[in-house]
Amino acid sequence: MNPLATTPRTQLHRKPVRGSYDRELAYKILDEALVAHVGFAVDGAPFVIPMFFARSGDELLLHGAAASRLLKGGSSGVPLCVTVTLLDGLVLARSHFHHSVNYRSVVLMGTAREIIDRDTKLEASAAFVDHVVTGRSREARPPTPKELDATRMLAMVIDEGSVKVREGGPIDDDEDFAVACWSGHVPIRLATAPAIPDPRTREPLPANVARLR
Amino acid sequence: MNPLATTPRTQLHRKPVRGSYDRELAYKILDEALVAHVGFAVDGAPFVIPMFFARSGDELLLHGAAASRLLKGGSSGVPLCVTVTLLDGLVLARSHFHHSVNYRSVVLMGTAREIIDRDTKLEASAAFVDHVVTGRSREARPPTPKELDATRMLAMVIDEGSVKVREGGPIDDDEDFAVACWSGHVPIRLATAPAIPDPRTREPLPANVARLR
Repeated sequence: MNPLATTPRTQLHRKPVRGSYDRELAYKILDEALVAHVGFAVDGAPFVIPMFFARSGDELLLHGAAASRLLKGGSSGVPLCVTVTLLDGLVLARSHFHHSVNYRSVVLMGTAREIIDRDTKLEASAAFVDHVVTGRSREARPPTPKELDATRMLAMVIDEGSVKVREGGPIDDDEDFAVACWSGHVPIRLATAPAIPDPRTREPLPANVARLR
Repeated sequence: MNPLATTPRTQLHRKPVRGSYDRELAYKILDEALVAHVGFAVDGAPFVIPMFFARSGDELLLHGAAASRLLKGGSSGVPLCVTVTLLDGLVLARSHFHHSVNYRSVVLMGTAREIIDRDTKLEASAAFVDHVVTGRSREARPPTPKELDATRMLAMVIDEGSVKVREGGPIDDDEDFAVACWSGHVPIRLATAPAIPDPRTREPLPANVARLR
């Protein structure tokens, strides 16, 4: 895969060991995450809205009530910054200074366009649903033309961006090994509780829902 | 507690049942979350950076490598949008259209100033560490003056903002109860794995780390 495009505004400045332009890693993070934080500017003022998203090949698809607000600026090209972060752990060092978190994050910049064509929206709808539970788009009822028209969707080509990863335990200063303080890290992850069926559901729990991590 | 300030740009437009200006709820979400997505504009282009944060009374404190980049625009007032999102569940409806996620999110707008005073930075450092593990700031070594000078911190008064909450199961259309598709929701939460001590740690696992959810 070709790397993400490096430009002055995505140039990685600090702790370069944690940064990359690895497109494959970026896609892995995007495919694992459930929410994107989408930034846009309105009259120079920044807005950041959590949005539901999916990846379709080299495109990011966005969807949600915020799309309407975002599109007020005009549907033919909205400059966006889309950031996706996965939290992997707490890093507890012997000093305040070296406390940190383990994470994987992708920052993507680009221009989003509105998806207008109904067939393309139908495909995007399936991508959103399958992003949550693999194969579910074939089990649930696909959208009617009326529902498609009521749903605003955006697409952005994945090109300019960067990836950052912090992993492992704390990196304490040599002189701090004498500090009598427990040091280490605590892995964290999203965990599911047992599924709660809708009271009117008569179907058994499907395998793809049962095996959600 | 007085509610968050409502302005045209924080006016809740859609699904008002999910939105509020409840300051107490906003603080509960902020105190539970570990990462904030901080948006700012540079020459009209949006940036969204994941940052480590803490709350101190009615102020939000921000910290991280990105603070430097953010402060390039001048340390005396950077317009920010700070968004914090907690994922609570997957909502699997009988139709694509009614698929959703359960979440609690806070969107805050304001102007951040750089914290310069060393004593205030020392207090902020303790707030950041205690935000991760209660009481840990007293166990780990506090920052030296040199470390404080190397850490850029921002403070933003919590005033203008809104809260959104989606909870519970799917809301299917009446005609979809005939669709033979399992419907329900799957709660999700951040879960910790057992702590991994640094190889040179001789201290026992402290109670405040052991009892992390």
